[in-house]
Amino acid sequence: MAPLASAPALAAASRAGNGSSSSAARFRVPPPLRGGAWLGSAPRQGGGARGGPGTCTAQRPGEPSGVINAEKSEFNEDQATCCQISIRRREIGMKEEQDWMILCANQYLAGYYWALFDGHGGPDAAIIASNYLHYCIKQKLEEVVEGITEAQPPMHLSGCCICPSDPQFVEEKQIQQEDVVIGALENAFQECDEMIGQEMEATNQSGGCTALAALYLQGKLYVANAGDSRAILVRKQSVVPLSSEFTPETERQRIQQLAFLCPKLLADEFTRFEFPRRLKGDDVGQKVLYRDYSMAGWGYKTVEKADLKYPLIHGHGKQTRLLGTLAVSRGLGDHQLKVIDTDIEVKPFLSYIPQVKVFDFASHNIKEDDVLVLATDGLWDILSNEEVAQTVRSFIDKNRTDPYRFSELARCLVHTARGKKNGHQWILDGNSPASYDDISVFVIPLYNRDEDC
Amino acid sequence: MAPLASAPALAAASRAGNGSSSSAARFRVPPPLRGGAWLGSAPRQGGGARGGPGTCTAQRPGEPSGVINAEKSEFNEDQATCCQISIRRREIGMKEEQDWMILCANQYLAGYYWALFDGHGGPDAAIIASNYLHYCIKQKLEEVVEGITEAQPPMHLSGCCICPSDPQFVEEKQIQQEDVVIGALENAFQECDEMIGQEMEATNQSGGCTALAALYLQGKLYVANAGDSRAILVRKQSVVPLSSEFTPETERQRIQQLAFLCPKLLADEFTRFEFPRRLKGDDVGQKVLYRDYSMAGWGYKTVEKADLKYPLIHGHGKQTRLLGTLAVSRGLGDHQLKVIDTDIEVKPFLSYIPQVKVFDFASHNIKEDDVLVLATDGLWDILSNEEVAQTVRSFIDKNRTDPYRFSELARCLVHTARGKKNGHQWILDGNSPASYDDISVFVIPLYNRDEDC
Repeated sequence: MAPLASAPALAAASRAGNGSSSSAARFRVPPPLRGGAWLGSAPRQGGGARGGPGTCTAQRPGEPSGVINAEKSEFNEDQATCCQISIRRREIGMKEEQDWMILCANQYLAGYYWALFDGHGGPDAAIIASNYLHYCIKQKLEEVVEGITEAQPPMHLSGCCICPSDPQFVEEKQIQQEDVVIGALENAFQECDEMIGQEMEATNQSGGCTALAALYLQGKLYVANAGDSRAILVRKQSVVPLSSEFTPETERQRIQQLAFLCPKLLADEFTRFEFPRRLKGDDVGQKVLYRDYSMAGWGYKTVEKADLKYPLIHGHGKQTRLLGTLAVSRGLGDHQLKVIDTDIEVKPFLSYIPQVKVFDFASHNIKEDDVLVLATDGLWDILSNEEVAQTVRSFIDKNRTDPYRFSELARCLVHTARGKKNGHQWILDGNSPASYDDISVFVIPLYNRDEDC
Repeated sequence: MAPLASAPALAAASRAGNGSSSSAARFRVPPPLRGGAWLGSAPRQGGGARGGPGTCTAQRPGEPSGVINAEKSEFNEDQATCCQISIRRREIGMKEEQDWMILCANQYLAGYYWALFDGHGGPDAAIIASNYLHYCIKQKLEEVVEGITEAQPPMHLSGCCICPSDPQFVEEKQIQQEDVVIGALENAFQECDEMIGQEMEATNQSGGCTALAALYLQGKLYVANAGDSRAILVRKQSVVPLSSEFTPETERQRIQQLAFLCPKLLADEFTRFEFPRRLKGDDVGQKVLYRDYSMAGWGYKTVEKADLKYPLIHGHGKQTRLLGTLAVSRGLGDHQLKVIDTDIEVKPFLSYIPQVKVFDFASHNIKEDDVLVLATDGLWDILSNEEVAQTVRSFIDKNRTDPYRFSELARCLVHTARGKKNGHQWILDGNSPASYDDISVFVIPLYNRDEDC
């Protein structure tokens, strides 16, 4: 396959306090991907956690990702993957072992894949996800390949038509190729979550991670997000958000409704209601501001003793926690996670379901300077979309001839959010404190993307 | 209070086939609203169902609504209400019976209210809702009046400050006056739904209705919607949608997830999965297109015998039904509704929760020709937002001096969607069939709205 016109670039920084004693040795290497499917032969495509401190390299699909380690901790809970995904069309009746014999180029659909995983409770789940998710996506796409190569997905994957009106039913539901890709991404997240659960149980590991995955396939960019990472498309005149964040704050009503439907999940230890602050004895009998699952607005309720329990969702902004434990409401892993000193499971309130947004290149005139930025919350806590866009535009403008401008730009964004060391603190230019979270950034040029496939 | 500068206008048409044998006599008159709260003394503020055929009047708050009956049926399942809502500030310790003594004007907050209710299974629920919802809203607003008259809602309704940082907690959560109004509207819908349930049980009535309510209060327009009616703001250069529709199609994932969490609700009679068409024996063993609650996209699943059950959500477009029964997924009433010939209740899948959208007049320069259009699905099935907007603009432009132009415009919109009688059929100008649903339209001029309060 042709080399990439412009290599995407990844930079990452890890922060003290987020490190873990986990090491690569604790991770069971996944089965190698079968022949021909991947550029490069490393079982781990990328993986940003254990690169040497201070290194940063431009990336090509299949090459290990480059990493900036901020030298604040030995390990980084953020992980990254970048690779090309080739989707095979299986011939009916052909055995699995014979797959390598399919060599004809037009039997392949090639896509690009970039993903970021922000681990919590250690990097283990993020490491597994960074090794498995693209494998799950590849598998799920291959399972439905007839649905994404036909102009209209057939009602029956086999192509047979049991009811003569089947094509009409599919058309009436407005089911398109891209819906089948979205479905495959959704199912791949579910499968990856299950694999992480099995893997973690078998190896007695724990923890979870967010997942943000971008897939370029057939002229469209699919961005699947479960967690609080973010993807934006920076263009000359505009910034296009390509993901939404899923946190206990943004998903309050879903989480409260689950507690309403299944109150046993709170084991009488938590209250479902949200209040502006934790209530105390003096509040009993008073009418205070509250929200329940059915409310986008706020009401007043008379405080009862039961309202003094710890709230299911508590805190504000970045400090908001689910069951006093997690800062995200979607992601992979956390199968064994319990609220400290209780038997209350956090997993039922978490969702592995990604939200998938689609950006169709056919209806947008992508220019040379248009780039996709994927980053973990460590960047977005410090820089707004508009600030990132301004940095991107001015950096590209000043470094137009530098072949490594995109990786340098990723490094620049990470360095900006990381700040500078001032004694034992890290501060930003205006002396405000920098983020103490891990920071990972992908900068991906989108121009002439099809020429690479 | 000053008379309205421009009277809002309502027009409605009822269609054959949707009528019911219910009559006004079956409806228990609600307790009269207490003194001073309303302009006009009729216990039913508006109520579009039983006006004489062919009549159409301009409306002022408190006057009975005008109605066009399309002469296709005796009764109209659509109902309408239009009135002014005055919110009293209760003095602490003052008994309810002494409320009428509060006469000082600045102790009132005045708002305007317009609402449409589209009944199903008879007009009974719509009639009760059209009589009660504004009463519930008034009551809920009065309960939290200190939260909507202060610059910032206090943590404690009493205004006392138990924790010195309480104002800061409220500020951190970014709780504003309008959030308390939204909460009051949400709670009012809930209370109205409960009242309908009690009323219907006591009088052995049945049925439900959608509810679309617009409230103008303190310089903001609040549009609360539960069902498939729609509100748009027509401006010179733009159309601003002020509501979203809630149908089994738009709420598929919420409804499927409930069935996943509480499978007993389907009593083994329905399948949770959505397919492009009802499956049959020949499909078993095949891989067919499907969607589950976790999917916005489509996947392929191998059909099992259990998948041949009737789908929880089935059909497409306007024909989509919940449990084979209802075409809407939010609304009031339907407490006794069961799937025909079974004990399966529909109510658990319905939601009384409205979505509330806020339009702040302070940040938009409202012009003389800007109007709010509220209409039931009978209009929107035939005319798009843009078609309605074009009719509105050209009608107002041609009838600038007519003091009844807004009611004439409402009548014009209803007549356009109703079509013309051609033998036993009703057809549109292009000979395509007209809607056979009830059609109700409010046209509400928004300019100088504050001068009326």
